[in-house]
Amino acid sequence: MKMSTVDMLDKVQTDAPSSATDLLVSYVTDSTYESMGSSVLEAAVRPIVDTVGVILAGLGSEVGQGMTEYARKQTLGAQKGAWTPVKGVGVSAEVAACINGALAHSLDYDDTVLGAGHPSGVVLTALLAACDPALPANKTPLTGRKLLQAFTLGFDVHVKMARALGLKHYKHGWHTTSTAGAFAATAAVAHARGYDREKTAIALGMTASMISGIQRNFGTATKPLHSGLAARAGVMACDLSEVGYTASSNVFDGPRSVLDMYGLGEKDMSQFEKLGGTHAIVDPGVALKRFPACYTTHRAIQATLNLCNKHDLKPEQIKSVRGYTPVGALMYLVKHPPRTGLEGKFSVEYLVACAVQDRDVGLNSFSDGAVLRPGIKDLLKRIEVTEEEWCRPDDPQGLRSSPATGGFIEVHITTTDGTKLVEKVFSPEGSVEFPLTWDGLGQKFVDCAIFGGVNPKVAKEVFDALRNLQSVPDVHALLRKLIPEG
Amino acid sequence: MKMSTVDMLDKVQTDAPSSATDLLVSYVTDSTYESMGSSVLEAAVRPIVDTVGVILAGLGSEVGQGMTEYARKQTLGAQKGAWTPVKGVGVSAEVAACINGALAHSLDYDDTVLGAGHPSGVVLTALLAACDPALPANKTPLTGRKLLQAFTLGFDVHVKMARALGLKHYKHGWHTTSTAGAFAATAAVAHARGYDREKTAIALGMTASMISGIQRNFGTATKPLHSGLAARAGVMACDLSEVGYTASSNVFDGPRSVLDMYGLGEKDMSQFEKLGGTHAIVDPGVALKRFPACYTTHRAIQATLNLCNKHDLKPEQIKSVRGYTPVGALMYLVKHPPRTGLEGKFSVEYLVACAVQDRDVGLNSFSDGAVLRPGIKDLLKRIEVTEEEWCRPDDPQGLRSSPATGGFIEVHITTTDGTKLVEKVFSPEGSVEFPLTWDGLGQKFVDCAIFGGVNPKVAKEVFDALRNLQSVPDVHALLRKLIPEG
Repeated sequence: MKMSTVDMLDKVQTDAPSSATDLLVSYVTDSTYESMGSSVLEAAVRPIVDTVGVILAGLGSEVGQGMTEYARKQTLGAQKGAWTPVKGVGVSAEVAACINGALAHSLDYDDTVLGAGHPSGVVLTALLAACDPALPANKTPLTGRKLLQAFTLGFDVHVKMARALGLKHYKHGWHTTSTAGAFAATAAVAHARGYDREKTAIALGMTASMISGIQRNFGTATKPLHSGLAARAGVMACDLSEVGYTASSNVFDGPRSVLDMYGLGEKDMSQFEKLGGTHAIVDPGVALKRFPACYTTHRAIQATLNLCNKHDLKPEQIKSVRGYTPVGALMYLVKHPPRTGLEGKFSVEYLVACAVQDRDVGLNSFSDGAVLRPGIKDLLKRIEVTEEEWCRPDDPQGLRSSPATGGFIEVHITTTDGTKLVEKVFSPEGSVEFPLTWDGLGQKFVDCAIFGGVNPKVAKEVFDALRNLQSVPDVHALLRKLIPEG
Repeated sequence: MKMSTVDMLDKVQTDAPSSATDLLVSYVTDSTYESMGSSVLEAAVRPIVDTVGVILAGLGSEVGQGMTEYARKQTLGAQKGAWTPVKGVGVSAEVAACINGALAHSLDYDDTVLGAGHPSGVVLTALLAACDPALPANKTPLTGRKLLQAFTLGFDVHVKMARALGLKHYKHGWHTTSTAGAFAATAAVAHARGYDREKTAIALGMTASMISGIQRNFGTATKPLHSGLAARAGVMACDLSEVGYTASSNVFDGPRSVLDMYGLGEKDMSQFEKLGGTHAIVDPGVALKRFPACYTTHRAIQATLNLCNKHDLKPEQIKSVRGYTPVGALMYLVKHPPRTGLEGKFSVEYLVACAVQDRDVGLNSFSDGAVLRPGIKDLLKRIEVTEEEWCRPDDPQGLRSSPATGGFIEVHITTTDGTKLVEKVFSPEGSVEFPLTWDGLGQKFVDCAIFGGVNPKVAKEVFDALRNLQSVPDVHALLRKLIPEG
């Protein structure tokens, strides 16, 4: 197919040098399994496996209900199509990417990279959808090795693109998971399919006309949808580029580039030169969340759990709990006392109470009933958390560091017999510094599966197979086992 | 379905007053067939009919090839689904909206409103897709009356939203057809389906996370795709809002509103107050294009046609043609001599030569062969067009008016016998001031159908029926006749 539209307005601009675009295109087309490096690839297995689990959990969320109805509307009676854990639908690659991307981010339980949002949910779901061998266009199964390679590349593109878009992009109101994510999805799919430079550049150019997602929709089901829309954009741009559909082939360069438009004067072009250098999965690394709650609360949960476990504290032994957290950490945690499960995710006092009462914070902690239990209500009266400048001595006002990762949290528990116990936590379980063990990941995976209605025994088998991703001959054959029963 | 996602970042912001959103939502939910006014509704029949024709022509373009392959990828074997002129596919409402929206804009032959882009292609295709009775969700046929009412409303929302986004939005690099268009599509579908205020507001909020489309993709097939993406966004946002999926319900108000983000300091909130006032279809009105070429060339074509017809000039009688056009009109018309059909659309000299040689400029004027005909090559040597300040005496440098609509064009023809003929044109056929007659529209419709491979006799029958849109009981029953033959 040749280009044929009549408006050539910016034809002149497309003659601009395309150095940034070239760097990105080269990274996508020229990277190999070997060039990625084994430690980088090894590190990528964990977020892949974790994200599959989180997708399953999403099925049990209200986003899962919406996406299920969406899938049915897109099905038109066919029962065959790209993999999604929604039962009894057969959908196109684009729809699968959209559904699974939204499911992955539905509980904010998917992984996170400091300052870059949530890459894995977008990149993985785009790849799984685009490369599903059940679709007529795909002749061969997606091997674990191939998935790993393309995912790893896309993950890095996500993080570097988020930085290239710059901080003003986020401050202005865009959701980087969605905007940077769409380019990452496109890069990953283009790489997995072995596109040449031209197809890759055009797919990226087309993606530039599909990036959006605004923070004003945070706090609603549209936030996770951003992840799905980004994955879908990647699949669509690649599919159209593949059949010869045209777009600008140097969209990151020249006047009114997509980075000018969305970077608003604070784009960082040096990120393109960093592609192929230190991989984002190694530095800054990725946090696979241990608790399905706002990340700024994780350290308070962790400190409370540590104390309760170490001293085997029962709720009735506790006179008071005082938490001290860096300035800024409570900004969005205004839900005390929480009235619903969702509000519970934004009440640090509730989360501390959960840690005392249940010795855990998990997916079932956020039903409306769980939040309103009498024991919890009683505990909440004894819990207080405040922001303190001394919790971040090197940056008291948090001008240069995040309240979720800078400084530390201290939890002080006074027992009914007058004992004072103190726990200081810099990095919670799940953080880059204190990663989940494979056992911890396995527990999370199975919890997610149960929450989504998937047989836990089957989920454990799939988890064990996915751990050895490099030797999986057909990823989708495994994933097809992960569909809820009856 | 209830909201359930964990990030409540902007919850505080959603408590902001929602006056602009309220005005828009009220317009969508409270407008009636009667409140639109009969002259406004009457005026809307023409762009509807014209846009159906242009969609058919799009099938014959290279965009049509891409969209055909796209439709096949989204079909998964089903043969039933929403209407699209692509043969042998059954697609969801979203996919139909995307395909037909891209087809409508594929040749830049769809209508245009000064400063607001191309509303009809987006609004009509979203409505036709969302309300197709072939889809399980729709119980009753879409009547012509209902289509007319919802289209008219969406058209007005498009134009006022384009203005609300402001001029900086366009100058920054966004394609208003796509951004404003998505909100217009959502408004039209929400209105057609009779949504309440809450569903309407949420659908508009979700749409705000789906607006994009950048001018850097002008001159490629992604430009028409913008029109399809906007139509698809409207259908998707409505479908999800309908099943209880959540989004911000006051996205046009408060801090970091979608207008702040995309208006970049030049939003015009007064446009919301104008909803329900003078309708855009009446003022500034809509131009239904007579020639499938860049709009700045239309007056030069018209002047040449007028002279050649009036004096029955043959090519061999012409010694020279001198065109004088307002400053700015040639900025994007740098393709002389044109080497391809596409370049021909951007060569005013070629278009003048066509008018002399063929006494018409039509869809078949833009094959590569047509451009390179010997007679044309010979004529091109005798044609010269220049920008002149005197062509726009009230605004010589075009600081306040468009080179396509401000001032006038003069064409001077000198014949081989020394006669000098002059024609001055302010408004070409198809403009608001000199609208196409129904006969002219019928000719265009049939030409479009032929170009798209649709039987011209059937096309003429459908055209005649659509002219009386108010009394059509089932619009889709008519449209189903418009699918190309074997």
